[in-house]
Amino acid sequence: MKRITIVAFDKFTDIDVFLAWDLFNRVRKVNSQWDVKVVGTKMYHTSVTGIRLDMQGTVELCNSADIVFFSSGPGTRKLIRDTEYLNRFKLNPKEQIICSMCSGSLILAALGILKGLSATTYPTAVKELQAFGVTVENKDLVVHGNIATAAGCLAAIDLVGHCIEKILGADIREEVIASVQPVGKGLECIY
Amino acid sequence: MKRITIVAFDKFTDIDVFLAWDLFNRVRKVNSQWDVKVVGTKMYHTSVTGIRLDMQGTVELCNSADIVFFSSGPGTRKLIRDTEYLNRFKLNPKEQIICSMCSGSLILAALGILKGLSATTYPTAVKELQAFGVTVENKDLVVHGNIATAAGCLAAIDLVGHCIEKILGADIREEVIASVQPVGKGLECIY
Repeated sequence: MKRITIVAFDKFTDIDVFLAWDLFNRVRKVNSQWDVKVVGTKMYHTSVTGIRLDMQGTVELCNSADIVFFSSGPGTRKLIRDTEYLNRFKLNPKEQIICSMCSGSLILAALGILKGLSATTYPTAVKELQAFGVTVENKDLVVHGNIATAAGCLAAIDLVGHCIEKILGADIREEVIASVQPVGKGLECIY
Repeated sequence: MKRITIVAFDKFTDIDVFLAWDLFNRVRKVNSQWDVKVVGTKMYHTSVTGIRLDMQGTVELCNSADIVFFSSGPGTRKLIRDTEYLNRFKLNPKEQIICSMCSGSLILAALGILKGLSATTYPTAVKELQAFGVTVENKDLVVHGNIATAAGCLAAIDLVGHCIEKILGADIREEVIASVQPVGKGLECIY
């Protein structure tokens, strides 16, 4: 069983949780050994637009996950100064795929995971990411081994695709991503 | 004030509600006279992957909305045979923009809104849509005046963009859609 955790928090950007959630869940149509959970620190977290999302576990589940996906949103700014929060993570980039959307990279940096690496982030978070000593690249996806950062909401398609390919191969990635393409522009059904 | 309703129901496809929800909400960053609500028939509806989403009003709100956006998912199949449900809608395509993602077009057809028109839908719903006498086009977006159908999840970007442009013009559309593009591939911040 492969375990995927999507990390949410208060004031998350809706699309940065739900697009990854939907895409990762599509894998289950072709591979039953695939478990996806949205995790946080409370019973539910509320998005920046006011959507209340029940959590399916706590952030400690990340510590044994195969893929740890940090979402994004204004809420990240508070978390990167919250040592109690950060200490709950015991991640291992040698064994786990660790990745982030947009300002989620700030959490990766605060956890020390981007030490010596370059990364990408949403334009409004560039200076804060640089303040952690991270070289920021003006790219949609930056990959260093098991660590990947993506930025600009729709870059989630490439980031999730990248994660799926690393674990299940290019064919499954292609099937999942093709299932959300527009009709006449690459759509193929896996449902 | 412009009012936008996104119609959800049990077994909705996550991305088909949440992508539109996030995009439509971005308009509020540049125009405060813009109200977006997810509406249904219960206190909450549960997506096909098990996400519980609180409703912000009932489907009757669609009857006075400027944009009525029908989402998609396996749940549509039950609704198109539910006359009590269908009778709650009193839509007017002369005054309202009425649109659908993927199998949401089946509800438009069941409401008689696609009479004499062509439309698009998800491949798995083509035969059911044809059974309503609708000519199905193999396109991502089909527009007839105030009625628009789109298919393939990511076609929501064009569909929502189309709706925004019809009410607020091409500049606002461009700003909203640019705000979700990948870094280095057209991203511009409105936040």
